Amino acid sequence: MIGIFDSGIGGLTVVRELLKQAPDASFIYLGDTARTPYGNKSPETVIRYALEDARFLLAHGASSIVVACNTASALASAALREAFPTVPVFEVITPAVEDAISVTKGRVGVIGTRATVTSGIYEKRLREKKEIEVVAAACPLLVPLVEEGWLDDSETKRIIRRYLSPLKQRNVDTLILGCTHYPLLAPLIQHAIGRRVKLIDSGASVVRRVLEHKARSTEHGALNTEHGAKTEKYFLTDLSARSGEIARKWLGRDIRFEKAELEIS
Amino acid sequence: MIGIFDSGIGGLTVVRELLKQAPDASFIYLGDTARTPYGNKSPETVIRYALEDARFLLAHGASSIVVACNTASALASAALREAFPTVPVFEVITPAVEDAISVTKGRVGVIGTRATVTSGIYEKRLREKKEIEVVAAACPLLVPLVEEGWLDDSETKRIIRRYLSPLKQRNVDTLILGCTHYPLLAPLIQHAIGRRVKLIDSGASVVRRVLEHKARSTEHGALNTEHGAKTEKYFLTDLSARSGEIARKWLGRDIRFEKAELEIS
Repeated sequence: MIGIFDSGIGGLTVVRELLKQAPDASFIYLGDTARTPYGNKSPETVIRYALEDARFLLAHGASSIVVACNTASALASAALREAFPTVPVFEVITPAVEDAISVTKGRVGVIGTRATVTSGIYEKRLREKKEIEVVAAACPLLVPLVEEGWLDDSETKRIIRRYLSPLKQRNVDTLILGCTHYPLLAPLIQHAIGRRVKLIDSGASVVRRVLEHKARSTEHGALNTEHGAKTEKYFLTDLSARSGEIARKWLGRDIRFEKAELEIS
Repeated sequence: MIGIFDSGIGGLTVVRELLKQAPDASFIYLGDTARTPYGNKSPETVIRYALEDARFLLAHGASSIVVACNTASALASAALREAFPTVPVFEVITPAVEDAISVTKGRVGVIGTRATVTSGIYEKRLREKKEIEVVAAACPLLVPLVEEGWLDDSETKRIIRRYLSPLKQRNVDTLILGCTHYPLLAPLIQHAIGRRVKLIDSGASVVRRVLEHKARSTEHGALNTEHGAKTEKYFLTDLSARSGEIARKWLGRDIRFEKAELEIS
């Protein structure tokens, strides 16, 4: 079973990708809505939260961990791999970086929360792979705009134009959506940055890697515990009516969220 | 010593008011930045957090508690008074309601986070006092706009206009700023709603009540522990460079934040 966690409900875009790419896959989702967002918290705090989230997923039967949150991917992947050395840990940064490298002609843009952009993680990883120009922009208002449901509103379009303007001026040819909420704004982002720019959705990229890994494991005769029915479970650390509403809008169906009680360390 | 807590740094507008109204008052501030915002969390979670915050302030010498956070004021005041029966607990809702009642001609507008507005607390309290019309609007994007520092930007102006449009149509004559971040947008809000509408800043209202209470206590010979130097302490549950930057901008001076370790219950 695939365990997916995020700082909140943003990671449901990863679930949406998983449902699209592998409708039969079993998974458990944990959104840490009680402590969302991670994007404005310190590295130590984000690491502590990520370890608690992963521990919850493993205790509930997950055999692999997908860190759907960019902030946690940037700050906590190493700590997760160290804490759970036998568990495959997938984060959203490496797959997006690889996909961007494979299509770019030399100028990659990155947008994300302030924490993700300040960490410089995408720039570092991109430049390790190839000698390219990277332009990053923090877009802290896009998450609240998505959560407000203003997915096609003039205010959102103006703010996206403002945030993307420095990237457009530098003529990026590829743009990494470095936050799980952003795929919901992909049409507006594509329009603002220009049709010729290739968008990289880090959620779609990581789901492809997870499924490739799963296919390889099964091929190599690894234990396949997934006989029987498909399981789909959704946990949140804080339940609110709003989460259900947003999930319905994003996934196009009703989701039953259960309350997760984390072991706080 | 006055203890002030908020879900984050928004409560610094209450500190700003306190510094303005009583520059010599000693106080301790706690911003729960590790778990901010409270506005999208469930009542049980907000109550638990508020109790932890108050316990921290009392353990650090506070003799009264100001709940600077509207969400916590709405959801956790009763629980705080029950848990700490000998401690004066001030919340930001009652003073703003009283001030609005004293100036309105009959139509009061309320703006706040989604949680505050959904709770209906201002409407209920206003109508308990007087037969008036109340129009409330949730403005979830204003906090992130303030934290982005877009205090006088065209995007902010447009969004404020959009949020206030139903209140303007209903001709409110008084407008309660039901969130500690909003005083920083007061000029834009005043411009959008019209010059004749009276703005009620809940932070300014609560500080007046705290100082009145203090004056009365001293008059009545209550123990005055504030001989000696003025104390001013600032704690956050999560330190980030950004908080210092915002505090400097809001208070017009450098603030040294200390890391608060809460006892998690």
